[in-house]
Amino acid sequence: MSAYDSVHRLFGRISSLEDAGGILSWDRDTMMPVGAAGRRATVMATLSGLQHEMLTKPEVADQLNRADAEGDPWRQANLDEMIRLHARAVAVPGDLVEALSRAGSEAEMVWRQARKDSDFKALLPALQTVLDLTRESAAAVGEALNLSPYDALLDGFDPGMTQATITPIFDTLARELPSLIRDVLAAQAARPPVGQVGQSPFPIPAQEQLGLRMMRRVGFDMTRGRLDVSAHPFCGGATSDVRITTRYEENDFLPAFLGVMHETGHALYEQGLPQDWMGQPVGRARGMTMHESQSLLLEMQVTRSRAFAEFAAPVMAEAFGSNDSWGAENLYRHMTRVEPGFIRVDADEVTYPAHILTRYELEVAMIDGKLALKDLPDAFNGRIRDLLGLEVPDDRRGCLQDIHWPLGLWGYFPCYALGALTAAQLFAAARAAVPDLDNGIAKGDFTSLLGWLRKAVHERASSVSTETIVREATGSNLGAEAYLAHVRRRYIDDAG
Amino acid sequence: MSAYDSVHRLFGRISSLEDAGGILSWDRDTMMPVGAAGRRATVMATLSGLQHEMLTKPEVADQLNRADAEGDPWRQANLDEMIRLHARAVAVPGDLVEALSRAGSEAEMVWRQARKDSDFKALLPALQTVLDLTRESAAAVGEALNLSPYDALLDGFDPGMTQATITPIFDTLARELPSLIRDVLAAQAARPPVGQVGQSPFPIPAQEQLGLRMMRRVGFDMTRGRLDVSAHPFCGGATSDVRITTRYEENDFLPAFLGVMHETGHALYEQGLPQDWMGQPVGRARGMTMHESQSLLLEMQVTRSRAFAEFAAPVMAEAFGSNDSWGAENLYRHMTRVEPGFIRVDADEVTYPAHILTRYELEVAMIDGKLALKDLPDAFNGRIRDLLGLEVPDDRRGCLQDIHWPLGLWGYFPCYALGALTAAQLFAAARAAVPDLDNGIAKGDFTSLLGWLRKAVHERASSVSTETIVREATGSNLGAEAYLAHVRRRYIDDAG
Repeated sequence: MSAYDSVHRLFGRISSLEDAGGILSWDRDTMMPVGAAGRRATVMATLSGLQHEMLTKPEVADQLNRADAEGDPWRQANLDEMIRLHARAVAVPGDLVEALSRAGSEAEMVWRQARKDSDFKALLPALQTVLDLTRESAAAVGEALNLSPYDALLDGFDPGMTQATITPIFDTLARELPSLIRDVLAAQAARPPVGQVGQSPFPIPAQEQLGLRMMRRVGFDMTRGRLDVSAHPFCGGATSDVRITTRYEENDFLPAFLGVMHETGHALYEQGLPQDWMGQPVGRARGMTMHESQSLLLEMQVTRSRAFAEFAAPVMAEAFGSNDSWGAENLYRHMTRVEPGFIRVDADEVTYPAHILTRYELEVAMIDGKLALKDLPDAFNGRIRDLLGLEVPDDRRGCLQDIHWPLGLWGYFPCYALGALTAAQLFAAARAAVPDLDNGIAKGDFTSLLGWLRKAVHERASSVSTETIVREATGSNLGAEAYLAHVRRRYIDDAG
Repeated sequence: MSAYDSVHRLFGRISSLEDAGGILSWDRDTMMPVGAAGRRATVMATLSGLQHEMLTKPEVADQLNRADAEGDPWRQANLDEMIRLHARAVAVPGDLVEALSRAGSEAEMVWRQARKDSDFKALLPALQTVLDLTRESAAAVGEALNLSPYDALLDGFDPGMTQATITPIFDTLARELPSLIRDVLAAQAARPPVGQVGQSPFPIPAQEQLGLRMMRRVGFDMTRGRLDVSAHPFCGGATSDVRITTRYEENDFLPAFLGVMHETGHALYEQGLPQDWMGQPVGRARGMTMHESQSLLLEMQVTRSRAFAEFAAPVMAEAFGSNDSWGAENLYRHMTRVEPGFIRVDADEVTYPAHILTRYELEVAMIDGKLALKDLPDAFNGRIRDLLGLEVPDDRRGCLQDIHWPLGLWGYFPCYALGALTAAQLFAAARAAVPDLDNGIAKGDFTSLLGWLRKAVHERASSVSTETIVREATGSNLGAEAYLAHVRRRYIDDAG
């Protein structure tokens, strides 16, 4: 077997273990009986540990050195990804990888109860363990790759992304946002009040059927995925088996519906990756910024548009029973309502970046050792007060709302905001490239958009960098301009 | 780390991979979208292959040689199990293990359609691949352990079991069964006709609720398990997470209900294994004969008894709505109705062994190379004609009905009949040890029975042999006598 074939086979087997972990993780959050939690944590830690052992075997470095891409750019990109993943892995001892996986599983279970009870203190010991292990791991990777610990974490979610890149973009946002939010709220206040949309209760089976119908309509392949229920919506599963979840409330169908569209955006990306490179590093999605851009493009740019509301209002009326309040314009007003609030995942796209700026600043401080966990609730509430003018009433609606830190996912949050910027930039480019895009959406036809995304983003997988994908798809580097223009156009100029 | 600690850790990790495979397998049969089948086969083959690699690493033999049980009988039994599993594993090349797992997954998917279409020819190529690989594997294990290929397969399902042990017991059955079935049918014909039980349709949600209620009642711990739906009922899942399935028909609730009780018998065994040895070989259930004995004890000995019918009839009437035909005696007559039929899993306990004698004889011939697969349907139908006097109308109701051979599980079928004999022998012993057993069952109190089974069977796990468990629990060696006495008592003497 050639050196290339050896590492190709190795990464293929590692990918199988990742897929096994993906289904076990989905199962844990949707199906698993509560008494199995401890054992499941052991099983998942073993899977992570084995992947790490396989990747860090002594002969792998030599095989990667000798492997020949034979001038094939995809093969070369695959090899580059392998080398990057290998370098990250050898930096961290296997015991630490297993300990982090186990601590994350355990903290997640504690978090479920602590969030319910709004009891940050109950989470503190488990979260401290996860943070300590994350810092240890980040320091080791950073040292190996000559990055700061926080940049080492970022690189794990969005390869090549650094604080140096993020800072000027986030500075622009921080500068523009306060007055933008003020202007948007003023424009909104000047418009007539919005009527209710439909009549609660909205039966959960009807909500589920609506979600499934819309998923199929935008292009989700139901033979290679599922929709289920979990406490915190996610897109997970495995290759050729993309599983999204949502959570339903009977008194309002919009949160679950918009959540389904959000996760469907992730899922379309996964389902559009090139089959030929299935199970290989280059065949994977290009980092979390790009992933979030796909979910936010579908949720924010498409679903909350006036064109989509025209298509969706009659479908919803049919799903829940018709009455007078199902007008498209009224639905659109509901989906674009701006209101500073506590919950990140329920936030509108105008105030959303404030939630990320808060978390970004705090998580950098936690990793740098400048913020003790016991001080997190006060610091969190302070930043929400500063940025959104809101007084957080309890930790359930504050620093306990997100699953990321209990799972050890420091460095992930900025990708959400970068994803929102990328989504705006990509959608503007799609509009320019596909002249009749909005008319198509208004008729429920998403084929042109999906076709454009397939070529511009999905099929490129990890063959080039995030920067290159954005630049080649949109003609300019990633920045905040398209996002800010979009917000002004939709929320101040009221242009859809 | 001591040699014992090394192998203890190794087998613990292997057990984690088995648990991962258990959940993936459950998921495949209950949840997985159809387009994921190919990839899932790859993932599961990788998991199997890794377990095999871990077990057959060169240093393991040496560690097993040096490991010291320090006079602890459970530790010694654990070590003995490790040595047995290791010897089986080193006999088979890793490539063959992966190929067999993949071929089994693929044949299973083909079988689902082929059974639907009653098209044996469609299954033939995939099944031939599985058979060829199974024979190759059986020959290798047999050579290493000085067993015939078929005995090597048996040993994989019921350690230590051989054709030499089975033959005299099955000879007794084959000698007694024809006249016994005749006598039973004559006795049944002499009794008044049986009325219908309840009124179809039986809504599936009500059937599911009834199943869950009865599972809990007999002792299933719902915090460590689930009930779901699959095409072929099974008990699977993982440690601390036992997942049983059933399939529902609206026009008759008894098949699903009795299936749930059957799988619950398996599940109670798994849930009763000693926590202290979780994830270690000695902590596992003691082979498939004992496992089937637990399912058949609950389904055949307990659930289909007159005492159980007294308890269950009012519960069922409540579940489906009351009417005159819900008498306990009438329900009992339905559950003990004897009628030679085509489908093994629907067979009564009197004719059931005929289905196993058929499969046993044919699968020995397939493994010995004396029966070509293309001749299987005719051979199968011929034996059913001989033993039950029935003309098999299509392969769906013949040799395509069971999942075992497509999955590569030659050598499994005899455990069902041996399990039925063990169940009868154990239940007779439980009756002798717990004087008020039947009165308890009639009141829906299963605690004494479960307590007896926990001590006599479940908590012993794999610390001693099947033979020893049976002998110490019942005072005599495994044989057909208790089963034959049970059939005469219940079906000829009409004594419940």
